[in-house]
Amino acid sequence: MADMRLIVAGAGGRMGRALVRVISETPGTVLAGALEAPGSELLGKDAGVLAGLPANGVMLSADLWTLSANADGILDFTVPAATIANVAIAAERGLVHIVGTTGLSVSDMAVIKSVTSRAVVVQSGNMSLGINLLAALVKRVAQSLDESFDIEIVEMHHKAKIDAPSGTAFLLGEAAAAGRGIDLHARSARGRDGHTGARRPGDIGFAALRGGTVTGDHSVIFAGPMERIELTHRAEDRTMFAQGAVKAALWARGKAPGFYTMTDVLGLADF
Amino acid sequence: MADMRLIVAGAGGRMGRALVRVISETPGTVLAGALEAPGSELLGKDAGVLAGLPANGVMLSADLWTLSANADGILDFTVPAATIANVAIAAERGLVHIVGTTGLSVSDMAVIKSVTSRAVVVQSGNMSLGINLLAALVKRVAQSLDESFDIEIVEMHHKAKIDAPSGTAFLLGEAAAAGRGIDLHARSARGRDGHTGARRPGDIGFAALRGGTVTGDHSVIFAGPMERIELTHRAEDRTMFAQGAVKAALWARGKAPGFYTMTDVLGLADF
Amino acid sequence: MADMRLIVAGAGGRMGRALVRVISETPGTVLAGALEAPGSELLGKDAGVLAGLPANGVMLSADLWTLSANADGILDFTVPAATIANVAIAAERGLVHIVGTTGLSVSDMAVIKSVTSRAVVVQSGNMSLGINLLAALVKRVAQSLDESFDIEIVEMHHKAKIDAPSGTAFLLGEAAAAGRGIDLHARSARGRDGHTGARRPGDIGFAALRGGTVTGDHSVIFAGPMERIELTHRAEDRTMFAQGAVKAALWARGKAPGFYTMTDVLGLADF
Amino acid sequence: MADMRLIVAGAGGRMGRALVRVISETPGTVLAGALEAPGSELLGKDAGVLAGLPANGVMLSADLWTLSANADGILDFTVPAATIANVAIAAERGLVHIVGTTGLSVSDMAVIKSVTSRAVVVQSGNMSLGINLLAALVKRVAQSLDESFDIEIVEMHHKAKIDAPSGTAFLLGEAAAAGRGIDLHARSARGRDGHTGARRPGDIGFAALRGGTVTGDHSVIFAGPMERIELTHRAEDRTMFAQGAVKAALWARGKAPGFYTMTDVLGLADF
Repeated sequence: MADMRLIVAGAGGRMGRALVRVISETPGTVLAGALEAPGSELLGKDAGVLAGLPANGVMLSADLWTLSANADGILDFTVPAATIANVAIAAERGLVHIVGTTGLSVSDMAVIKSVTSRAVVVQSGNMSLGINLLAALVKRVAQSLDESFDIEIVEMHHKAKIDAPSGTAFLLGEAAAAGRGIDLHARSARGRDGHTGARRPGDIGFAALRGGTVTGDHSVIFAGPMERIELTHRAEDRTMFAQGAVKAALWARGKAPGFYTMTDVLGLADF
Repeated sequence: MADMRLIVAGAGGRMGRALVRVISETPGTVLAGALEAPGSELLGKDAGVLAGLPANGVMLSADLWTLSANADGILDFTVPAATIANVAIAAERGLVHIVGTTGLSVSDMAVIKSVTSRAVVVQSGNMSLGINLLAALVKRVAQSLDESFDIEIVEMHHKAKIDAPSGTAFLLGEAAAAGRGIDLHARSARGRDGHTGARRPGDIGFAALRGGTVTGDHSVIFAGPMERIELTHRAEDRTMFAQGAVKAALWARGKAPGFYTMTDVLGLADF
Repeated sequence: MADMRLIVAGAGGRMGRALVRVISETPGTVLAGALEAPGSELLGKDAGVLAGLPANGVMLSADLWTLSANADGILDFTVPAATIANVAIAAERGLVHIVGTTGLSVSDMAVIKSVTSRAVVVQSGNMSLGINLLAALVKRVAQSLDESFDIEIVEMHHKAKIDAPSGTAFLLGEAAAAGRGIDLHARSARGRDGHTGARRPGDIGFAALRGGTVTGDHSVIFAGPMERIELTHRAEDRTMFAQGAVKAALWARGKAPGFYTMTDVLGLADF
Repeated sequence: MADMRLIVAGAGGRMGRALVRVISETPGTVLAGALEAPGSELLGKDAGVLAGLPANGVMLSADLWTLSANADGILDFTVPAATIANVAIAAERGLVHIVGTTGLSVSDMAVIKSVTSRAVVVQSGNMSLGINLLAALVKRVAQSLDESFDIEIVEMHHKAKIDAPSGTAFLLGEAAAAGRGIDLHARSARGRDGHTGARRPGDIGFAALRGGTVTGDHSVIFAGPMERIELTHRAEDRTMFAQGAVKAALWARGKAPGFYTMTDVLGLADF
């Protein structure tokens, strides 16, 4: 099979540069285009040089329609507005769309899903193998233990992160809620401060730590009578997320139209 | 149904006293006898008083045959020689035998299993809900991840513990080895010290910490490329193990003869 | 020297009972009185029996004036209103007053300090050796590291705890703020949730986890460029706090009038 | 002051390349030479290109005498034999010698110290700010706590590491032993496995975990009666060590001849 031709969206950003590097190291893939926002100062620059590699002749462009004439997929870790703008073009051009953008609203998700009767989309709040495996574990444990075990989720990220809890913490919370058969929205305890009263049975608690250069640590704690189970994931480097995205693209190539998640890519549905 | 009449073996020891207390607090159970080693200074003492409870009239005895005339089960956290001596009598008398003794050899296990065509035995290296759930998780994760994830098991116990790694660490190692389909004995790395060379792919590593009054902490780490999953259990108090043993006895009452483990008691076989 | 005669305030509560037990085990101390709130159903009961010990003939009373006629000190882990009511009597009677009550307001502290020109008071938000040593460490590290290291404090307690963060977390935060020479009140980040923006340089962050039966875990994290230092304390049992209080009473006996803390008791002032 | 001209020893290795990158980013420093072992295939290659930077015209050479004619310092993270060979030349040429090589024997150290009456040497088993601060903390805590607190040191490193425990674990162990006033060699417990007997009071225990790509995590645990203090350092990236070495070189420039450590560089002597 010919190499899969991939476009990197947000190619001038930190995650975009990591994607360019990973594509350069992954057999079976080739960089077909580098997208940036209209007006960016980086338009016209060489994507390889920006990524700390030798020049590769792929210049940053704001025109997805043209770039996508000759591509198989797009890796999209940008912002919701940009992702939404990419959805229709990717579907029209028949590109596999790998969506790692965080902060997507319910209506954003509806737009994304509106094309999946004719296009292949893989979306996840976290593209790493480890986090998706952890989510599968959390769901199973939450199924096995009753409310005498309290569930708490704590995460730590670098000081530049602007929201709390992390999208990945919510992904883990949704897994716990699914295991228990409850609605996370109605049962989450966030931002504890001051006179809180005793813990409400069955709630899922969240706490966020921020500091330094931490890539991302997450723990889900099941605290019961005289014992605790703690399930932790530590990410050492964001390269891991880029590797997961490229793996998802290779997996998705040639699949039937549909909406997929990393659970499908990693074969964790029956875990 | 009448209360289940339970004998506590080693009733003068730390674990035996905890069992006496838990039975006194557990509906559906009653203390039917208190066994101690022949020659113990505690023979003839009141089991309730030894356990910090009001006197209950159950005096420590070394004669299991007599005690078991009027009992349904025996909770046995003693030493291998004592447990082996109890096996035949318990089977002959039709008692459910709950075996929490550690350090059992292969031939000890063979003796125990020799009676299970006619008797009910539940045996486990660790009777807690949390540890057995953790073992089920470890097996699943070891099945899902290939050898690019290294498995390490580290535990900490109080300073009086005389062996390393703990029996529970081995139980978790066996779960990992079963998930990978390998022989733990041939593939474990223990007691690393000095010039070890690079880690051998596929090995399961063990490390033991000792100090203070720690009841028992265990972590199983899956360390892969740029990410780690850590599965941890923390025991706050040994009461938990006594509760698991009493729960096992109630579960086992009336079951068909056979050899069972906490995986059966807790319904984790299909986890 | 004669045994130190100690009154336990709140002798019917969980902490009071632990104090009664520790006094019974500590050479050089004897239980001289057991105080409870007026109207309590426990008045007139035997303090030993309530604590799970043999009867000791010390009956719970609401009358501190009478109890203190024949005592040397009072151990007071109650509520602010009760502690304030005890301050004047203890000072008048010349008792060493050990105050472990949490939730004291600025004006409560003013009342307590108002008697220390003529009485000995030892007050601390946490009486354990380990926590006070940790606070001394935190202060030193905060002095040594500049604002390129972000400070975060995370704690976990049992599900019945009704406030967040814990008093001990604040004690650790005050130590960090003192080390940095900043005002904790103006620079703390608590209850992060939603769109928080990037971390404000120099802030001290707090997060609270609740669940199960956790006695109390605290971590202070210094997260800098590509490295982290984490200073953690784990309490296994509340007995530790009672032992610290009794140790404080023995230390304070015969000291000059003044306001003391566990830093003084443990000799950590020059740490 | 003119930029400090630095030679990187082992410039073709993983640590050497990181040093070349850090020098290129650090104001006040310039790469003056790149040393490699005689016979290396990399001799004659451009040090910048090897480090993933633009070519810088500094070609790898095996001739330190020539390189050092025009240099102020040498950063040396190599192997003991190479470091020993560099000592005399660096002293003769008046270079500041920064030694980060691990595995140095007692006699290697004697050779290094033999030149410090006339040369400036900074040597440390770990060049990071955080680890050296942690060592200072460990020494203080070990001074404050008696033998009722057991000291355990556990570390985790990537799967390619060939020795155990790490040099940094020993550095922390030495700090603990100095705090207690004991001889680490006589009092360390390493490689626990099998029937160990109860923990010997006052021993310092070591355990080593290996797996994945972990840069280096270290914890020193003080486990006492019903409480634990855990002091942990997590390194996210080896760049940190290179930064520490360059910082040491800038600090050492112009200092009086002598043997220095990172404790001096970081001003932690009076901690």
